[in-house]
Amino acid sequence: MDTPNSGPVSSVVDLTVKGTLVDVVTGSLRETTVAIDGGEVVALADRPAEREIETTYIAPGLIDAHVHVESSMVTPARYGNAIVPRGVTGAIADPHEIANVCGVEGVRGMIEDATQTPLKLSFVAPSSVPASHLQDGGATIDVAGIETLLDEDSVVALGEVMNIPGLVAGNETVHAKIRAARERGLTVDGHMPRVSGADLQEAARYLDTDHESASVREAVAKLRAGVRVYMREGSSSHNLAELIELVDRPDVDSRRLSLCSDDRDVVDIVEEGSVDYGVEKAIQLGVDPVEAVQMATINTAESYGLPTGRVVPGAPADLVLLEDLEQWAVTDIIVDGVINPTEDASDPSPTSIPTDTTTFEPIDAADLAIEQPQPGPVNVRVIDASGPIQTRKMHSELSVADGPDGTNSAVFPDTEHDILALSVIERHGGDGGIGNGFVHGFGIERGAVGMTVAHDAHNCLVAGASYESMARVANQLRAVGGGLTVFDPQAETMETLELPVGGLMSEEPLVEITDRFQAVEAVAETMGFDHDGGVHAMSFLALEVIPELRLTNNGLVDVDAVEYVDVVVE
Amino acid sequence: MDTPNSGPVSSVVDLTVKGTLVDVVTGSLRETTVAIDGGEVVALADRPAEREIETTYIAPGLIDAHVHVESSMVTPARYGNAIVPRGVTGAIADPHEIANVCGVEGVRGMIEDATQTPLKLSFVAPSSVPASHLQDGGATIDVAGIETLLDEDSVVALGEVMNIPGLVAGNETVHAKIRAARERGLTVDGHMPRVSGADLQEAARYLDTDHESASVREAVAKLRAGVRVYMREGSSSHNLAELIELVDRPDVDSRRLSLCSDDRDVVDIVEEGSVDYGVEKAIQLGVDPVEAVQMATINTAESYGLPTGRVVPGAPADLVLLEDLEQWAVTDIIVDGVINPTEDASDPSPTSIPTDTTTFEPIDAADLAIEQPQPGPVNVRVIDASGPIQTRKMHSELSVADGPDGTNSAVFPDTEHDILALSVIERHGGDGGIGNGFVHGFGIERGAVGMTVAHDAHNCLVAGASYESMARVANQLRAVGGGLTVFDPQAETMETLELPVGGLMSEEPLVEITDRFQAVEAVAETMGFDHDGGVHAMSFLALEVIPELRLTNNGLVDVDAVEYVDVVVE
Repeated sequence: MDTPNSGPVSSVVDLTVKGTLVDVVTGSLRETTVAIDGGEVVALADRPAEREIETTYIAPGLIDAHVHVESSMVTPARYGNAIVPRGVTGAIADPHEIANVCGVEGVRGMIEDATQTPLKLSFVAPSSVPASHLQDGGATIDVAGIETLLDEDSVVALGEVMNIPGLVAGNETVHAKIRAARERGLTVDGHMPRVSGADLQEAARYLDTDHESASVREAVAKLRAGVRVYMREGSSSHNLAELIELVDRPDVDSRRLSLCSDDRDVVDIVEEGSVDYGVEKAIQLGVDPVEAVQMATINTAESYGLPTGRVVPGAPADLVLLEDLEQWAVTDIIVDGVINPTEDASDPSPTSIPTDTTTFEPIDAADLAIEQPQPGPVNVRVIDASGPIQTRKMHSELSVADGPDGTNSAVFPDTEHDILALSVIERHGGDGGIGNGFVHGFGIERGAVGMTVAHDAHNCLVAGASYESMARVANQLRAVGGGLTVFDPQAETMETLELPVGGLMSEEPLVEITDRFQAVEAVAETMGFDHDGGVHAMSFLALEVIPELRLTNNGLVDVDAVEYVDVVVE
Repeated sequence: MDTPNSGPVSSVVDLTVKGTLVDVVTGSLRETTVAIDGGEVVALADRPAEREIETTYIAPGLIDAHVHVESSMVTPARYGNAIVPRGVTGAIADPHEIANVCGVEGVRGMIEDATQTPLKLSFVAPSSVPASHLQDGGATIDVAGIETLLDEDSVVALGEVMNIPGLVAGNETVHAKIRAARERGLTVDGHMPRVSGADLQEAARYLDTDHESASVREAVAKLRAGVRVYMREGSSSHNLAELIELVDRPDVDSRRLSLCSDDRDVVDIVEEGSVDYGVEKAIQLGVDPVEAVQMATINTAESYGLPTGRVVPGAPADLVLLEDLEQWAVTDIIVDGVINPTEDASDPSPTSIPTDTTTFEPIDAADLAIEQPQPGPVNVRVIDASGPIQTRKMHSELSVADGPDGTNSAVFPDTEHDILALSVIERHGGDGGIGNGFVHGFGIERGAVGMTVAHDAHNCLVAGASYESMARVANQLRAVGGGLTVFDPQAETMETLELPVGGLMSEEPLVEITDRFQAVEAVAETMGFDHDGGVHAMSFLALEVIPELRLTNNGLVDVDAVEYVDVVVE
């Protein structure tokens, strides 16, 4: 459904662009001239124009079907200004992270912040805040909050529904949120990793989309159940190569496929791109370029009823000009008829997203240690995080010695065996409670690493070889209002990426954040940090909804049992 | 976007149907079991069930993308009950005809009447009522009326916008109606016969669909402009054979194509079907059966944002069971989980559509004659209706003799040269004004034929060899509240198909109306009636927006000049 503006077309239009159109509506390439006036495509035909451009290829501006802008660590305005030049002119943003920090107010801040970039961000109402009640996040979005958000003009869907067991079991809150979206004619996004069989059939009654398929088999089952499949090419999850054969399968209609980035970190965005990288990679993997562009334009627009994602009369003039289609070699961008709108853009206004969200009391080293009545070795539960996002349970024998305050006995980390101390500090103005534990898999030999990006509750998480270093890191994060910090006591180096916006994002340009992030990672590496997922991998240690063992501000959680467990085993 | 119901699935579902599914979502055929509970598809998987059915093929219930139910001459309830058994479970109905008779009230009557049939009728708000101001119809639907209708739950679009010159020129009323639909997120249907070039580009800014393409070239131009193309297989317009090659063209994406019936008369519905005939014919013409079904299900559902048109969990359980797909051999229908819901259906309640809409004063023969001051031959303008819907101007010399009341001189028809007298009588409670003229092309040698179905104003139209017969026909139509009447003075036979509902429709079952209609046509044929379009062809003689010459209640209209012209040429 297109949503044309109305108003007369000038006898001389603002702009014409001549080239080979990637026509996603007819699924073909053809020579044409795109006439643009008042920010709208007014004809696919030559017209007298104030300005004429000739190019090689013209494509609709790309739309990312699902992205967490917070993962870029910059505000929506900065994110948009960074990716528009790559040919991405729209995205469906799920502000799930900021919502866990500051709820409806945070989402509204994101929406307002996004008005400062030419990137057309549509939002979804985050459905699963908090992720669970085992951790204290900054906010809850209840059914009324969802309804409030769904009534915002820029909100086009209910965000990824994660509580599939609750959905299947008839959980009333989950269903009420879905009904609220349905009543408004909005889409409902799903989150169904490895959901199959009877659960998939039941969940598919309610969910329209899913971006969690990791295999063709999983994706085909979802497509057959009527769920649109978004193929993800993120920073931690790379599903595109595995799923690409879907496109040409005779039993799949590619109109039901879209491309999304989900989570991409700053380095990947700068080096590879966002959903533009997905398009480029799909083409490299053998997909017809027109079909690849369809999966990042009209298919996604249809999924959410957007007027964008196609170049036809009446559509907003959002175009990408390319000198080469297969390499996605972008030369210019047009958004609402404006050529290269991010060039010479002034800095965004101070963000409306809360910046006072890291509020715990100063930390002493002793706060982070687990006391024991007497010295001697103890058997402790350790989070084995050496693999991908899913953790495993392990046990280690750790020593008990004089505690960091010199009076009590405490359990100590063991860097010889890559066992670090780990603490999660409630930072959202609650009781400031601290959960302490141990983790394996990061290789740090000294010092500490900490962050206020810690999915999904985003408390302050610190891991380290010594309680003193950890306390310094925690206090640094407290002082700057959140971010990523690494402290090397040997070099007396404290490197910090400040993320004061919700403790998740910065108002600085994305490229500057990239530099700061790489500086933090560089210091961590000198301290022995070694993990395939980089420093980001640590941000999942508190995600108490993914197996097997996680640490929250309330203590250690056995995810499968959905219960707290002691760190020190009797 | 699906709109699932919510509520738990029973441990034993109501019904399972096992067979080869025409899966329009994945574009493929596969063996599956459809589990149905509470009227909804709850799984594509086997489940314990109260009742189990095995069949050969399972398809989604078909959706007709554009139909004027009034053309069937029965009420929506009767229409639905007639076509549901053919596998048509949904239709986008444009109540343009009843709207011209009784406006918003008539449309609301249609909506209410439609609740009595399992056919899921979605409505559009008729955008072009009246068609022009050269004729007095029964109603005007202004912008406020359109807004009222667009707010009805079952209204999904603005009906076919016909005033393309007005749209292109910026006519404020036309644009206001379109804006009203856009603001509500609704589709805007177009009506663009032979519109091309700059007009098409401009119209395409505002119109989403068109069903008037008569050639591949015309259709491709519309598709490229972003307009969905509906391929029509009606009673008077048969475009499918001409357009079918669109489906397999490499520069067309068939997802943008739908099938529609537009206008199909009772005989064609009974003998061939509605949009099911389009599917069958498309398959006969070589289209892949799955793609043919897509064009009458999911493509159309997506055009209007309907939850139907696919068999997936969460969708309403609207299914067609077939023993043969290529022949469209239907065995059973399921609508909202109910098997063959029209079997043993009781008669609908009295309709809520107005039935007192034929209100002119009794007619004398003299009212229908054009007086002349003195006897002798005169040169008259005659409507040449011997071809298809478009008429041509012709001139004839007709005699002037004593008028029908025995006092004045009047111009007389000339059956030797197939020149009939023609009158259009205002029937909507206005001034009862009568326009008189002459027509060529129907072959009647005696008597008269009349009808209150006379596009678009639907005044009472009578054509005949004598003024006395015409008056008898007009008075018969007045007495029964509208319909089709033929009077043969030689046999003293008066045959009437009563259509008291708005003067357009009957509350009797469609098959009975078919019989009555054929009886009327049979009598007409004995009087020499001969036209490729049958008696229906006469109903277009008053359609003052299609070239070249038409008769309205206000007189003869030169359509291209948009002005009244005298019948008798000086």
